[in-house]
Amino acid sequence: MSEAPSQVTPHAPVGGSEFDRDTMVRTREPGVHEAQLSPGWAIGKALNGGYLLAVLGRALRQALPHPDPFTITAHYLTATVAGPATVRTSVARAGRTVSTASAGLYQTDSRGTEVERIRVLATYGDLDALTDDVRTSAEPPAMPPREQCFRATDHPGGDAAVPEMGRRLDLRLDPETCGWALGAPSMRGEIRAWLELADGRDPDPLSVLMAVDALPPTGFDLGLTGWVPTVELTVHVRARPAPGPLRVAITTRNLAGGFLEEDAEVWDTADRLVAQSRQLARA
Amino acid sequence: MSEAPSQVTPHAPVGGSEFDRDTMVRTREPGVHEAQLSPGWAIGKALNGGYLLAVLGRALRQALPHPDPFTITAHYLTATVAGPATVRTSVARAGRTVSTASAGLYQTDSRGTEVERIRVLATYGDLDALTDDVRTSAEPPAMPPREQCFRATDHPGGDAAVPEMGRRLDLRLDPETCGWALGAPSMRGEIRAWLELADGRDPDPLSVLMAVDALPPTGFDLGLTGWVPTVELTVHVRARPAPGPLRVAITTRNLAGGFLEEDAEVWDTADRLVAQSRQLARA
Repeated sequence: MSEAPSQVTPHAPVGGSEFDRDTMVRTREPGVHEAQLSPGWAIGKALNGGYLLAVLGRALRQALPHPDPFTITAHYLTATVAGPATVRTSVARAGRTVSTASAGLYQTDSRGTEVERIRVLATYGDLDALTDDVRTSAEPPAMPPREQCFRATDHPGGDAAVPEMGRRLDLRLDPETCGWALGAPSMRGEIRAWLELADGRDPDPLSVLMAVDALPPTGFDLGLTGWVPTVELTVHVRARPAPGPLRVAITTRNLAGGFLEEDAEVWDTADRLVAQSRQLARA
Repeated sequence: MSEAPSQVTPHAPVGGSEFDRDTMVRTREPGVHEAQLSPGWAIGKALNGGYLLAVLGRALRQALPHPDPFTITAHYLTATVAGPATVRTSVARAGRTVSTASAGLYQTDSRGTEVERIRVLATYGDLDALTDDVRTSAEPPAMPPREQCFRATDHPGGDAAVPEMGRRLDLRLDPETCGWALGAPSMRGEIRAWLELADGRDPDPLSVLMAVDALPPTGFDLGLTGWVPTVELTVHVRARPAPGPLRVAITTRNLAGGFLEEDAEVWDTADRLVAQSRQLARA
């Protein structure tokens, strides 16, 4: 063997990875799904909104006749914590090519009251049923190869500065868009990164829902510090991603009135634009 | 009087215009609102999705403690027709600064069955309560003055080619982005226009919901013809628009697999980016 063991990439299969285990939902009865939210996807005290969207996305997949989220919108109502949660789904229409449903994620608070954490609206379809016709004017972001990008663990603060969720990911920031980590934000409102699950699981439409919300906030590149809570996040999944790491590019054009939008594009190894997302967040 | 009467711009007040009358909803009981959808907002046989979003937006305003749609998403399920409709609203959370609700628009079909046409999820707030802080990198679109843009009635097909909704609007297309009307699409996927209500009513957050879906589809500029039905439309209203005509710029980056996204930006006369929207549509 010419390759040192440290260079062997682990490669958990889709369905058998940390991400799959932590987003698993059990359908108790039609429209009622139980989840066990993992503390492994926390950033600070809060669970990541993209991770939670993937949990909701999996419950909707079980509730609908189509497998893939074509367009899904989440409104984040109250902070979700690790532990048990219930997802209730309500189908609006099940059509031939697409189907639409709402869902709510609920947790029981310390007083025993059920509280809604997130409300979602989504239309599902089958990405494999789409035509191969691609007439896109979008180009993949110009980024250096993965080996020339910065891991979170390269941060001067070291491993302790990495949020818990960072340990689930192999996230490598484009050096051009992480000056903020050294106190020199570019003020362009851009963050770009290579992103893969730490256990090497290939991307799929559900992990893409997490990927669009996995990078540091663009606010950091605009000189903001601190928490940028998401009000609403919409993701369009446009193609089934090819195996291998994703490139995620996030931009903000409009920071005003205490709010900002974050637009994400997700590109796969085949240079296909597989997802577009936009979120409204509080600065 | 030095001014000819034909040059006097009519100016219906907010609350007293055609748009206000046609989007009116009557709250029958908490959570149940009746609307009378006007045939005046049809494009071909279908009522315009932006007009319908404004009707839903008005019902949500009556159901929530906050007046303005900060972010609203609609999924279009079945074709809505002119005539009576019922909007049912369901509040998810009413907070201090923002509140969130779902809504559905229903009509009774020819067999007497109630059918859901549109399902919506929205978070409302108070635009007047936001800070004046604007740190945006977005620039208004470079467009010629209104007088140098094309009205729909300038089309060689004449007045008969104007859809019914066109009569409700003073829409003037940037000459650079309407080559498609003469058989020469630019293939850039861009449409820009000046937009005002025909009766001169000033824009407000509800009319902005209509404005983002009022232009010809960007597909025309990509060489597509025919109907581009909306699957989902999300609008972020970021500021209360100043009086006077809006500029609306729509772009498409990703036409693939039989679907495309349309991103709209809406600018007011004060050069403020007042709304951003994205829709997923079928090509």
